[in-house]
Amino acid sequence: MSRPAHRRPEYHKINKDLFVLTYGALVAQLCKDYEKDEDVNKYLDKMGYGIGTRLVEDFLARSCVGRCHSYSEITDIIAQVAFKMYLGITPSVTCNNSSRNEFSLILDKNPLVEFVEELPAGRSSLCYCNLLCGIIRGALEMVHLAADVTFLQDRLKGDSVTEIGITFLKKLDEKKYRRKK
Amino acid sequence: MSRPAHRRPEYHKINKDLFVLTYGALVAQLCKDYEKDEDVNKYLDKMGYGIGTRLVEDFLARSCVGRCHSYSEITDIIAQVAFKMYLGITPSVTCNNSSRNEFSLILDKNPLVEFVEELPAGRSSLCYCNLLCGIIRGALEMVHLAADVTFLQDRLKGDSVTEIGITFLKKLDEKKYRRKK
Repeated sequence: MSRPAHRRPEYHKINKDLFVLTYGALVAQLCKDYEKDEDVNKYLDKMGYGIGTRLVEDFLARSCVGRCHSYSEITDIIAQVAFKMYLGITPSVTCNNSSRNEFSLILDKNPLVEFVEELPAGRSSLCYCNLLCGIIRGALEMVHLAADVTFLQDRLKGDSVTEIGITFLKKLDEKKYRRKK
Repeated sequence: MSRPAHRRPEYHKINKDLFVLTYGALVAQLCKDYEKDEDVNKYLDKMGYGIGTRLVEDFLARSCVGRCHSYSEITDIIAQVAFKMYLGITPSVTCNNSSRNEFSLILDKNPLVEFVEELPAGRSSLCYCNLLCGIIRGALEMVHLAADVTFLQDRLKGDSVTEIGITFLKKLDEKKYRRKK
């Protein structure tokens, strides 16, 4: 089940509803498999991580983004280029600390929950969209950027917005990032 | 987890790779859950059935297809409108019997297996894309058309093409289909 060496380079789209409902089936299956919400969340994150490590190469090839010189720039690219490209939405970005390594992506709308009105019964700690956190984490790790990525707020849990927090874990190696300018 | 009453009517698309990799994660999870390929196939079909019953309403609204008067017409719409709309491909259609209730959709390419080179080890009877059969079956049932939908050939199993067989199980109630012309 590995990736073929030669893939068509063009940028393909499919109907969103099919994806959203298939994702719902995946979450439902994991809820069936794991009793604890924490385990479902962990598994979604793990699956997302694997997906992120595979998506990132295509993303870099297709997006033609240049080298980034700050975590702020990197987060802007995740929000404005990656989310736009993969989910058709553009979250807003806030920086949450003076060290400028903690950011939030604020999602006004979230296509993944379009068919979901509320969390399943007895699943109040479920991070329904935790796959997204794993994808971001996996993609970042492939470009040597360790990060914690978690949901800080979730409309499905009654919060007013959905917010994904990204904490970059290492001091950005500016030398490395500047070397090949 | 039910569907909201008022959804935006526009036709939305997302990046295919994200869907294809998420589908791969779903299949991998089911392979982990069920030892027998037959059980994985059954479960994918069941999940697909649920998805099909939910997609069909949108499909009918968006596609604006008219009333069909034969199984041949219905199969053409599945191939030329539904597959095109949801997966961006148009399978060719063949009719397999003189009663004109058995058809095949021949898929030259199959986006769902774009990241898959071969079936996982020890999974030679897996119908990797069986979700599609369930979706077609579920969607048809919602418009009162009982059908068997199965993979007849699969490139992942070494066949030269991928072929989905659709057998409509009842004589088409032509009166009913003509009533509201």
